[in-house]
Amino acid sequence: MKLLDKISPFIVMDILAKARTMPDAIHMEIGEPDLPPSERVIEGYERAIRDRRFHYTPAKGVLELREKIAEHYLLRYNVRISPERIVITPGTSGAFLVAFAMLTDKKKRLLLSDPSYPCYRNFSYFLDTDPILIPTGSDTHYEIQPEVIRKRDDIGAMVVSSPSNPLGNLYREDTVKALTALADEKGFAYIADEIYHGLVYDQKEHTALEYSDNAIVINGFSKYFCMPGFRVGWMIVPENLVRQTEVIIQNIFIAANTPAQYAAVEAFDYAYLDSIRNTYRTRRDYLYNELKDIFNIDVVPDGAFYIWADISKYSDNAGEFCRRLLDEKAVALTPGIDFGKNGTDHYLRFAYTQDLEKLQDGVRRIKNFLAS
Amino acid sequence: MKLLDKISPFIVMDILAKARTMPDAIHMEIGEPDLPPSERVIEGYERAIRDRRFHYTPAKGVLELREKIAEHYLLRYNVRISPERIVITPGTSGAFLVAFAMLTDKKKRLLLSDPSYPCYRNFSYFLDTDPILIPTGSDTHYEIQPEVIRKRDDIGAMVVSSPSNPLGNLYREDTVKALTALADEKGFAYIADEIYHGLVYDQKEHTALEYSDNAIVINGFSKYFCMPGFRVGWMIVPENLVRQTEVIIQNIFIAANTPAQYAAVEAFDYAYLDSIRNTYRTRRDYLYNELKDIFNIDVVPDGAFYIWADISKYSDNAGEFCRRLLDEKAVALTPGIDFGKNGTDHYLRFAYTQDLEKLQDGVRRIKNFLAS
Repeated sequence: MKLLDKISPFIVMDILAKARTMPDAIHMEIGEPDLPPSERVIEGYERAIRDRRFHYTPAKGVLELREKIAEHYLLRYNVRISPERIVITPGTSGAFLVAFAMLTDKKKRLLLSDPSYPCYRNFSYFLDTDPILIPTGSDTHYEIQPEVIRKRDDIGAMVVSSPSNPLGNLYREDTVKALTALADEKGFAYIADEIYHGLVYDQKEHTALEYSDNAIVINGFSKYFCMPGFRVGWMIVPENLVRQTEVIIQNIFIAANTPAQYAAVEAFDYAYLDSIRNTYRTRRDYLYNELKDIFNIDVVPDGAFYIWADISKYSDNAGEFCRRLLDEKAVALTPGIDFGKNGTDHYLRFAYTQDLEKLQDGVRRIKNFLAS
Repeated sequence: MKLLDKISPFIVMDILAKARTMPDAIHMEIGEPDLPPSERVIEGYERAIRDRRFHYTPAKGVLELREKIAEHYLLRYNVRISPERIVITPGTSGAFLVAFAMLTDKKKRLLLSDPSYPCYRNFSYFLDTDPILIPTGSDTHYEIQPEVIRKRDDIGAMVVSSPSNPLGNLYREDTVKALTALADEKGFAYIADEIYHGLVYDQKEHTALEYSDNAIVINGFSKYFCMPGFRVGWMIVPENLVRQTEVIIQNIFIAANTPAQYAAVEAFDYAYLDSIRNTYRTRRDYLYNELKDIFNIDVVPDGAFYIWADISKYSDNAGEFCRRLLDEKAVALTPGIDFGKNGTDHYLRFAYTQDLEKLQDGVRRIKNFLAS
């Protein structure tokens, strides 16, 4: 069997499809911001169309956008990155595909935590390599610990997503320092998925580039910047990978959508982005406070827009729980099994990508469901 | 060595980069339409932005667009295709990547003609498989002949591009019939790259779906529809591949850019598209008549916007010829070696993606160059 055949659909897609047929459904299953992008972005998009920006861009993307991203790293993290090292991709998806293709193979594999974002493993299957899955749990703050992987000689690249989907946890600084040092020492790539940066509520997040020049950072405009359908992401690669990254993108994508790249130049509207973070923080505070009394929440949701809830006092079959909750109360959630096999069948992922009133209604319905 | 490392940059990229620094350069190297899309498309794009179409679409793409494409096959080819079998991709690039991943591997390989569009082979290297390259020349009208490949048992899929890049030739109906029948008989996939359909000047082109329901057709909006930077393509797959195609796209791309998909709904503006074809036909007629007296043209440019010229009476090093022509006369062309190894070092590809006046100036400069 080709590993490609291991790529399976997400259960949440069936839930989503069904929930969309229910007019009164509360959608807490969707990993996509409900808020619009900044008006400046929308004006930039309109301008790009007025200016007939319809040709292919260079494979690395529009220079003006890459310069804006470099400026963002200076302002936000005080890290100086040459725009030459920044490559625009069709969403972060495009960046993961290219990075994993360059850095992993059957012998030097992709190392991931379980649970984690399911597409990581599926990219690996797509490239016909089997990922290494490291179980993580509350005992290690859901972090991959350096000592667990130190002795392996089959790692091509590891992915650390922080704050993470589905957990919302931020890796602690000491762990990131130790892991980037280990990657440098052992010669594998440290890939930081920083797509939920900006959506961190009680502390300041750090980019992996503060700890290592060899780290590969992947980020994009789909979450914090509220531009999911634009399909624009970026990757920052070490100098020695710039040319190969460019040539691969030239061949397999040509480039990302052109007007969306010009629109993204306007995305760094920090006043607006602060309001986005505040909105999600308010929702997180509400939902976390409610859910922690109902379920067992063993990982603090520092960021992103997810809460990972242990439902084992009610069920050890989260898929069945989700289906019943949807049928009986029209509340849509994502079962943990979409994210891995490490005891995920008694976890649920809540996404607070709906306004507060809807979340309150959802919580009421869940309480009713559990009381019935 | 990983096969990925075989992916090399195109020589034309260096030529393009240099030509762009020359204010009076004549660009005949660019495989991208110079004409704008229909005004209806532009209005559709503006409307999509006004309507805030910024969320992810379903992995298979916007249904309205898939229905329009189905209607196009009925109107243009009299072939009835269910929109269920049509999948929207990020450019045809996305479609090739997914199709080759599903249908080829180390044992069942990708079969291509040499010369052909260089990205085909590079997709194969990206997927860590070595393509089979079948030399084609004027003796077979630059077509892969069924008898040449009949005995092979290592074919997973073959690609036929018609009209083709870099040749502009249209496969003859009998050859397509024989090849699709052979594919069905031997159980490999026949992948038709129909991206240059619409740009066929003296006859009516046929889709591979007229000959076989098992054919996989790949097409998109970047050439005939003049929407290259939109990055929207489509693939039509047999029913038994629909679900796997969808699940792979969900995982590796999420979906194509959303506003561009809505804009593409307006692309089937046939009166405008006729004017596009007429413009390219006039240019083709002019350039072909000029070039056939200067070089040896051994393949009739039926379509696309390319002419493939044998320059062996002047040089057997087309790369060197291109560099000198650019340096001395500021005319940019693509050397044949970008498209394969089958005697391509004494061929040039001309793209007539510039207005007639520029093409005339280019021809004058080439005559001067050869006379000096």
